Amino acid sequence: MKNRLNELREILRRERMGAFIFPSTDPHNGEYVPAHWQGREWISGFTGSAGTAVVTLHKAALWTDSRYFIQAEEQLRDSEFLLMRMGMDETPSVAQWIAQELDATGMTEVGVDGMVITENTAKELAADLRKAGGYTLRTNLDPLKLIWRDRPQMPMSPVVIHPLKFAGIPAREKLQQVRRALAAQHADGMLLTRLDDIAWLLNIRGKDVPCIPVVLSYLLIASDRATLFVDSRKLSDEVKAYLMSEGVATDEYANVVASLQSYKDYNILMDADEVNHTLYGKVKCQVICGKSPVAAMKAVKNEAEIDGFRRAMLRDGVALMKFTNWLKKGLKEHKDDTKPIMIDGEVVTEMTVCRKLEQFRSEQPLYQGVSFDTIAGYASHGAIVHYEPTEKTDVPLMPKGFLLIDSGAQYLDGTTDVTRTIPLGQLTDEERLVYTLVLKGHIDLQLLKFPDGAAGTQLDVVARRALWEQGYNYLHGTGHGVGAYLSVHEGPHQIRMEYRGAPLHEGMTVTDEPGVYLEGRFGVRIENTLLTRRYITPLEQRGETLSPTKRFLEFETLTLCPIDTEPILWELLTAEERSWLDNYNRHVEETLAPYL
Amino acid sequence: MKNRLNELREILRRERMGAFIFPSTDPHNGEYVPAHWQGREWISGFTGSAGTAVVTLHKAALWTDSRYFIQAEEQLRDSEFLLMRMGMDETPSVAQWIAQELDATGMTEVGVDGMVITENTAKELAADLRKAGGYTLRTNLDPLKLIWRDRPQMPMSPVVIHPLKFAGIPAREKLQQVRRALAAQHADGMLLTRLDDIAWLLNIRGKDVPCIPVVLSYLLIASDRATLFVDSRKLSDEVKAYLMSEGVATDEYANVVASLQSYKDYNILMDADEVNHTLYGKVKCQVICGKSPVAAMKAVKNEAEIDGFRRAMLRDGVALMKFTNWLKKGLKEHKDDTKPIMIDGEVVTEMTVCRKLEQFRSEQPLYQGVSFDTIAGYASHGAIVHYEPTEKTDVPLMPKGFLLIDSGAQYLDGTTDVTRTIPLGQLTDEERLVYTLVLKGHIDLQLLKFPDGAAGTQLDVVARRALWEQGYNYLHGTGHGVGAYLSVHEGPHQIRMEYRGAPLHEGMTVTDEPGVYLEGRFGVRIENTLLTRRYITPLEQRGETLSPTKRFLEFETLTLCPIDTEPILWELLTAEERSWLDNYNRHVEETLAPYL
Repeated sequence: MKNRLNELREILRRERMGAFIFPSTDPHNGEYVPAHWQGREWISGFTGSAGTAVVTLHKAALWTDSRYFIQAEEQLRDSEFLLMRMGMDETPSVAQWIAQELDATGMTEVGVDGMVITENTAKELAADLRKAGGYTLRTNLDPLKLIWRDRPQMPMSPVVIHPLKFAGIPAREKLQQVRRALAAQHADGMLLTRLDDIAWLLNIRGKDVPCIPVVLSYLLIASDRATLFVDSRKLSDEVKAYLMSEGVATDEYANVVASLQSYKDYNILMDADEVNHTLYGKVKCQVICGKSPVAAMKAVKNEAEIDGFRRAMLRDGVALMKFTNWLKKGLKEHKDDTKPIMIDGEVVTEMTVCRKLEQFRSEQPLYQGVSFDTIAGYASHGAIVHYEPTEKTDVPLMPKGFLLIDSGAQYLDGTTDVTRTIPLGQLTDEERLVYTLVLKGHIDLQLLKFPDGAAGTQLDVVARRALWEQGYNYLHGTGHGVGAYLSVHEGPHQIRMEYRGAPLHEGMTVTDEPGVYLEGRFGVRIENTLLTRRYITPLEQRGETLSPTKRFLEFETLTLCPIDTEPILWELLTAEERSWLDNYNRHVEETLAPYL
Repeated sequence: MKNRLNELREILRRERMGAFIFPSTDPHNGEYVPAHWQGREWISGFTGSAGTAVVTLHKAALWTDSRYFIQAEEQLRDSEFLLMRMGMDETPSVAQWIAQELDATGMTEVGVDGMVITENTAKELAADLRKAGGYTLRTNLDPLKLIWRDRPQMPMSPVVIHPLKFAGIPAREKLQQVRRALAAQHADGMLLTRLDDIAWLLNIRGKDVPCIPVVLSYLLIASDRATLFVDSRKLSDEVKAYLMSEGVATDEYANVVASLQSYKDYNILMDADEVNHTLYGKVKCQVICGKSPVAAMKAVKNEAEIDGFRRAMLRDGVALMKFTNWLKKGLKEHKDDTKPIMIDGEVVTEMTVCRKLEQFRSEQPLYQGVSFDTIAGYASHGAIVHYEPTEKTDVPLMPKGFLLIDSGAQYLDGTTDVTRTIPLGQLTDEERLVYTLVLKGHIDLQLLKFPDGAAGTQLDVVARRALWEQGYNYLHGTGHGVGAYLSVHEGPHQIRMEYRGAPLHEGMTVTDEPGVYLEGRFGVRIENTLLTRRYITPLEQRGETLSPTKRFLEFETLTLCPIDTEPILWELLTAEERSWLDNYNRHVEETLAPYL
């Protein structure tokens, strides 16, 4: 590690740079970063998903958020990296710290690889550095190319065609839709860099990124052609022929730069929140800085995708039910809450739970893997929002308190995301209260009817109201979109306190996952994946015309997994909430019964 | 009217302008425009509060929104003004229409008086004109100065000192607060042009604008001095001495221009959403374009202001109760729903109601006038959101259906705003249903507990949920701030569907006014004015520390006016809603009883 810093500093000296910044992102600004771009981890040793490392000639520091404070402390202990705890009052920003460190050195240049930050992030960073003391940002150097000798190769999984029976709409039609949307923004073309957007648009899938079935690539859409930039070794003749037939040419991944430089249309749309800084600067034509239209199109699921979701949820439900039955068998036999739960002669731990759940899911047809790393947190671990058990943190389950399991799977016909909080035995009054309040919010959101086009920010309070009344709250969002055999976290719509303007329309998937996290004690979260659908109001049922709102929406619950009623304080639920819960659990049971 | 247009066109020809635009605003961007600046009305004949007139050499057009379509049609019928219905698909924007009209003329310059539009509006307009065909906006000419010969004088009411017992905090302290806020934005000074902000800051009041007790003035705050620009004839020696003692010099109203030109500090903050275009362009120093800090300070009421509100609400409640008793007396005697209600031998009409209500209010101590024009809409008039009865529209009340009354008063110690929907006799099923749903939303919002700092947009759905479920909705906001003997509509916080980021904090007034409007049939709105206060959660009551949210808020209801229970479909109310309503009506009765 010391050597790595020394070699980096040699380059800094040679290039007369005062500091170099390593963000956690890659050229495609995705949620999961392939090993090839995990340079921040390589230089710092910190493995968390979010963090920024900065190295000057004499110091090094790493910024991360509260989720990772403990992990970062441990991982940085024997390094020269200082831990910068984001969100604390005394913590300087990256630009402030750099300015302070470079103040006496006379150095004025700071480096970052422009390929791994978005145009907008680079702009903000450059402005912050300028303000902090006139420092300039240089973006055309990637020192890792020189010093990271055993740098992992770029991922190399074959491209597969996503069958039309699952995708629903041919790629050429989607491309036409995109071109129409671009025309409405007076754009002749666009550069698409988000991997899940490209996979959705072309009906292709791959295994280049963990948990998300995408292909490392860029897509350049011009008025008269479209080119997919992808390592040609990933393309079979069949896939090449398929792409050609959909009107998509192919070129090598790295050639995107040259193609942008020689792009000849009058203008091009690039979404500065998505496209990386280096590619953003390559075109010579006029750049229209707008929102990419693709995310909003992908968010509205077509009939084939919706059918796929329903089938995937059914299989996922069967796996979840088998898992629950397996776990409950163990619970029945262990009532002594001083001894761990054992099943088939083995102690059950958080990691056992993850393995067992994956096993039941993997037995289901069309299973392709998990859609994110399973969160299985027992007791106080349930209060760590992004907890994943490791060999080091794993604990045996005792027959008392809550086990929080947030998990999901990728199937060829759909992606799942579900959280249940399972009582393992004796519960405290507060555990029962919190469980009931979270459940109330969860149900209330599912019961809500709302105007077509409402933004998630407007609806969010419905899931929080019961918690707020008692003094509880949670800081994460209440819901996110879910991809159709794509990323489990999809936008642009979200349900959250922070303002997101993206409207909800018919046919969108969205999760409903309120929670409460009491540090050192326990956590509760209950999550279903929902689908927005047309709501026929009583007014319409009476044959009257709606005014001033023209269309209302409601939620259909896609997830099929019973919600445990044992912890509920029934007197806190309204008749309507109770009736929803009864109906839901009965519906799940009846639907899954034939398959168990 | 024809003459006015001819004279204007002569000026346009002389100045080589293709068109002139008359907006509805004045130099202070206020809600009510003094007669002196009602140039749009003078040139077009249209008297509505919102509209834009445009005159070219050969045509004239007026843009207004759906509230005023019918009125504008009537008022423009015999003029050459075309009515441009805003919000309709086929209606061109002002810039589009001008571009189309000037296309063949070779004229490229369009005029507007820069004193009567804000900097941001002028910027947008200039950009729209540029885009529509390269037209340029000229802002330094006010043709009304030449052609409006009987133009009303500027308002000339004396400035009065708002007593400290009502204002709570001395002006010099408020000025210090503002200077601290400016320093935090790295600004040396600011130009304040909003009349209610100036009146609040300096603890002065006047009668220069209808319904809002403010003084026509500008306030220039520099690091070492503050100057109020106001017609010196309005200032008594006492007021001058008072201002001096608070650290405020005075100068003539028109001298603000010269003072800005010679402003010597390093920079100045100007809020481009408030300051007019002409003044914005006068300073020669650096302009910091930020949000004025004054509105957010004014929004948080101090103890004296809160006490004042409570006293004003009590007196307002007594007046409302006397009015209701007067009306109910008439109702008791008239059960034949084919004959109008008569009281003391006279037919009761909408205008009678307005007069009577004002009379009861005017008998209360400290009464200063209405806080907005009373809305009293019987039956289908209740469905017109901004209806004000006139001689032409006035109708007698019949003993059936709803009378919607939205009214408010200015008292020296507070401003009131209250809406009640009063059943006058037989009601239809739908009238009862809608009344109950609106009431549910109204109560649910008052019952809500929420984190300190939440934005109104997040809370809005709580007032709409019951309506949405049945297919009803309303397009206006759910709530706005209310001034302390100032404007009845105050920001920056609001409760509405459209996103407004301004946070709610302890000590803010806000209305709660959901409604439903069924065109041609009836309207229901129920409104109380609320106060945000600290909410001690059950967790805190149990002695536990809150996490992650540090403070919660709840609403205290300030308005004291019973809510009619006759129309309620009780089975649609929850036990909690019923209990709130019972308690509220009992509380109102007990509080007002000693004064009746």
